[in-house]
Amino acid sequence: MSATVTPRQDSALLILAAVGLALLTILSVWKLKQFKYRLITETGGAMFYGMLVGLMVRCLSFDWGDNKETVCTCVGLNSTPLLLKINVTSHFNRFKHVGRVNHRCPPVSTPHMETFDPEVLFNLFLPPIIFHGAYTLNQKRFIGNLGSVLTFAFLGTIISCVTIGACVYGFTRLMVLLGQAADGDFLLTDCLLFGAIMSATDPVAVLGLLSELHVDLDLHALLFGESVLNDATAIVLTHAITTYSQTGAGHIFDPPAFFLSVGYFLGVLASSFLLGFIFTVITALLTKFTRLCENPLLETSVFFLLSWSSFLSAEASGLSGIVAVLSCGLSQARYTIHNLSSEGRTRTRQLFEVFSFLGEIFIFSYMGYVLLTFPRHVFKALFITGAFLSIFVSRACNIYTFSFLLNLGRTTKIPRTFQHFMMFAGFRGAVTFSLAIRDTSTEVRSTIFTTTLLLVGFTIWVLGTAADPMLRHLNISVGADEEENPEDLSFEVATGGPDTSGGLWHRLDYKYLKPVLTHCGPPLTDSLPQWCGVFARLFSPHVQEDEEQLCGTEPDDSPSDLEKTENQLGSLGGDSGSAHQEDLLEGDLGLGTAPALARDA
Amino acid sequence: MSATVTPRQDSALLILAAVGLALLTILSVWKLKQFKYRLITETGGAMFYGMLVGLMVRCLSFDWGDNKETVCTCVGLNSTPLLLKINVTSHFNRFKHVGRVNHRCPPVSTPHMETFDPEVLFNLFLPPIIFHGAYTLNQKRFIGNLGSVLTFAFLGTIISCVTIGACVYGFTRLMVLLGQAADGDFLLTDCLLFGAIMSATDPVAVLGLLSELHVDLDLHALLFGESVLNDATAIVLTHAITTYSQTGAGHIFDPPAFFLSVGYFLGVLASSFLLGFIFTVITALLTKFTRLCENPLLETSVFFLLSWSSFLSAEASGLSGIVAVLSCGLSQARYTIHNLSSEGRTRTRQLFEVFSFLGEIFIFSYMGYVLLTFPRHVFKALFITGAFLSIFVSRACNIYTFSFLLNLGRTTKIPRTFQHFMMFAGFRGAVTFSLAIRDTSTEVRSTIFTTTLLLVGFTIWVLGTAADPMLRHLNISVGADEEENPEDLSFEVATGGPDTSGGLWHRLDYKYLKPVLTHCGPPLTDSLPQWCGVFARLFSPHVQEDEEQLCGTEPDDSPSDLEKTENQLGSLGGDSGSAHQEDLLEGDLGLGTAPALARDA
Repeated sequence: MSATVTPRQDSALLILAAVGLALLTILSVWKLKQFKYRLITETGGAMFYGMLVGLMVRCLSFDWGDNKETVCTCVGLNSTPLLLKINVTSHFNRFKHVGRVNHRCPPVSTPHMETFDPEVLFNLFLPPIIFHGAYTLNQKRFIGNLGSVLTFAFLGTIISCVTIGACVYGFTRLMVLLGQAADGDFLLTDCLLFGAIMSATDPVAVLGLLSELHVDLDLHALLFGESVLNDATAIVLTHAITTYSQTGAGHIFDPPAFFLSVGYFLGVLASSFLLGFIFTVITALLTKFTRLCENPLLETSVFFLLSWSSFLSAEASGLSGIVAVLSCGLSQARYTIHNLSSEGRTRTRQLFEVFSFLGEIFIFSYMGYVLLTFPRHVFKALFITGAFLSIFVSRACNIYTFSFLLNLGRTTKIPRTFQHFMMFAGFRGAVTFSLAIRDTSTEVRSTIFTTTLLLVGFTIWVLGTAADPMLRHLNISVGADEEENPEDLSFEVATGGPDTSGGLWHRLDYKYLKPVLTHCGPPLTDSLPQWCGVFARLFSPHVQEDEEQLCGTEPDDSPSDLEKTENQLGSLGGDSGSAHQEDLLEGDLGLGTAPALARDA
Repeated sequence: MSATVTPRQDSALLILAAVGLALLTILSVWKLKQFKYRLITETGGAMFYGMLVGLMVRCLSFDWGDNKETVCTCVGLNSTPLLLKINVTSHFNRFKHVGRVNHRCPPVSTPHMETFDPEVLFNLFLPPIIFHGAYTLNQKRFIGNLGSVLTFAFLGTIISCVTIGACVYGFTRLMVLLGQAADGDFLLTDCLLFGAIMSATDPVAVLGLLSELHVDLDLHALLFGESVLNDATAIVLTHAITTYSQTGAGHIFDPPAFFLSVGYFLGVLASSFLLGFIFTVITALLTKFTRLCENPLLETSVFFLLSWSSFLSAEASGLSGIVAVLSCGLSQARYTIHNLSSEGRTRTRQLFEVFSFLGEIFIFSYMGYVLLTFPRHVFKALFITGAFLSIFVSRACNIYTFSFLLNLGRTTKIPRTFQHFMMFAGFRGAVTFSLAIRDTSTEVRSTIFTTTLLLVGFTIWVLGTAADPMLRHLNISVGADEEENPEDLSFEVATGGPDTSGGLWHRLDYKYLKPVLTHCGPPLTDSLPQWCGVFARLFSPHVQEDEEQLCGTEPDDSPSDLEKTENQLGSLGGDSGSAHQEDLLEGDLGLGTAPALARDA
């Protein structure tokens, strides 16, 4: 109606474009799948449409490129103020500081990129994705494979980072030899940084694929667990390497800085895990000791906000939000879920499912968009070749080496076919992207960013599309029924090394954590020593007092009760959500049986 | 871990503060209510905590006030660029244009206010609130009271606007007489603008109160319908008055500009309604003709995104987003809901419920925060007094006058007690606030903004708190059972004037819209003329072909089938969501019976 476009309309238009893009992605991918083109994934589709929009924006605004900036000199300005009032033709205008200009490079971001700040995008959409993955994970399988997952995620990622770094460094030396780069352009730390960035395999893309194909549950647990935890490792590694390189070491190995980085790495990881768990403790105690479950809306809102807070708190205090929200999701599914009302359980799961689904689409569309609108890509053919080669080499080093070593200790081996598929499913995605976009100020960093985007696109489109035929080729069971066979319980004690710690953990979990945080498990008055009597009574008052008044929680975990809980849980999922519901159920079943096994072992 | 605070941490910290605030509000209000302090509402609590945070921020950052801006003059700058590169001590820094400075006033916003852009806040949180209100509205009661609602919302709001404008104008003349303002400071258009802003009674606060107390369903329909629709009227009126005053008319009445404004008003209103309905048509056809209902996640996502798009499209094209999303919500509940799977129905309702609940809390916290951190409040005692008086006078003019006139035509009169309560429940909230904050560039506008904030606070805290005792005092049934008595069907034909149009509408709805958009109603091949045969067959293929394959939709609306649908709908709500579920059910029941009545009338 009105001719001029206000900032309000502009912002609405931008959000509308994003929403339209998401709709287009959802509908077209769904339609294609109906016609049996199962190859196309939502992530790939979203990225493709994002690129289309990027292409359109680029074509339409090609002439903006240069004349959108005016240079002027201010007399008498000695410092850089945050806000600046400038006298333009006798009117005062207010300007806000955006950033320092690097002389070698044109502007960092286009005006459109500023509207969708990647930081905000990731703060909003990444947490629900990771949380949902952890919350609906089959806990028994995850715990059964925990030793292997940790090995792949920590040792494997470090190996992967070093391999990629070394391989790419080799190629940069070649570039220097061929005269394509100066000697000091690519330092070893730059290459290692690239290695760390590229080591983060993407849980979003992996989850999308796995939940689509319903692969074997052990493979699911291995792949998802690895991809989430190695993100954490990669994020912390990246930070550690940046810190190390800022000490100015560069080419030379500097032991103190190195050990500082290692300490930093371990500290951040542990603190983030702890922080996520603290938020679970808060949520669990809140839902245990109050009657929030009488109002599922409040219950869901509080659960949602507290889980999100775990990510935000970690980010705000300089820790890893992804690790925190992962640990929060895993522990919420283990403890808090027992305190929720049955409607609350369904609601929280469905809420995170929608958020995670939409978040995935928004993030990948945005990546596609940036791929074509980022104003200063630096393409170095040799660097890109080296990077392509290195991700395969590093993935092979990681998977095959550690699978071999782990199989020495595992009773149920990781089959060859699983290894091949894990080698293959090294997608790169949102986390890799967010690590690379954080700093694009120098030419080296721009090269890294461009190469990263290309690799993300390659793994999502080529590997993602080939995953389904690959699974068939490898004869891995697709469309696996999510119900467990009783024989599979042997997995619980499959890994050799972490078993005793697992047993310890189970005892701690069963005897202390569950009784404190939920209404399940043995009463604390039995498991705690005599002198903790006050504490014990404080944390288990409801068990004695008003058992019957609480909403749908079973006070005990004895085998007969477990069956009841199972039926109860099973009845609330509705028809189509039952797959995920089964997952929760499995996790729940695992809780009861695991301690018995641990005591036998 | 790291000492410096990055922008990422800063943004996480800000979101964390908002999330923490929301948690605090939810838990404390819930706790207070448990102790029978039913007086405190979520909106009031949220605003209170927002103010506390605002107070803290103000105390902590008091010294920022003046030295945060540097003034400089750029040589040779003739126009105002969007981006500016400035040479500061031999480094180039980039600055972004924020806005033009008004000489009479200090800066418009604090740095913190810029982080939470009100436009973004409203684009994100307002649509779900209005949509949820419309989606879960008892459609039968709403349609039964439609004539009255429209009268209150349109004629009433215009009367209200004029009354407030005139009253406040009187007070500004008094201010001129007493020497507190210059003669040209407050124009009549400014006062009318204030009248338009203050005429928007708030659906968010009203909804919070009504769903809390479970008041009489007719009162609910009247109050909610009025508050949503008068927002629309107020928004469009505000725009019309701004347009009118920009023609420079000021004190003098200018017929062409006036009629232009009236035409603009009607045009925007009609177009916005239509736009919302178009999105419903898209959603309904999409869910009718595809098998989206096989996947509740996709179904919910598409439903959610399309409904949100109605708001965004309207805003982007300069129409009223609130009106569009209202019309979308009403029509989605009438048509699309029949095409959704039963899980989809529950999911969409619950998703919007959580969004709407959290959105309400965020918006009111933000208002409380701005109340104390807005840097240049202008308090004019007389203006504020006039405004306080005028909102009561105008509300009385609106409610009592039109109730009297409407009661002449209604068979079921609006009781005196309802009138008193409606008079009383004229809360002001988010929409009023968003209209006032849009322009605070001049002193007059700042005065309006300050007065608006004070009035919002007053109505929310004082009137909101007094609402519960007031209801008891007036002997209006609280905690009303939401099940309808069959006698209440007489309401359907209660209003005199709009009844024939209602009858026409019902025929159109039953014979054409429902069969086209859903699988209910008579087959189109019967209701459409012979020559529309192709069209008719195109829009009702599924009725004949694969009736049994569709997910839970009943192809026909005959009385026996209605009962089935009722049972089906009734079984999916869970325990505590049943109140809202009942609403949907009622609306659904109303659909079937209304046409029969219409044909009798």
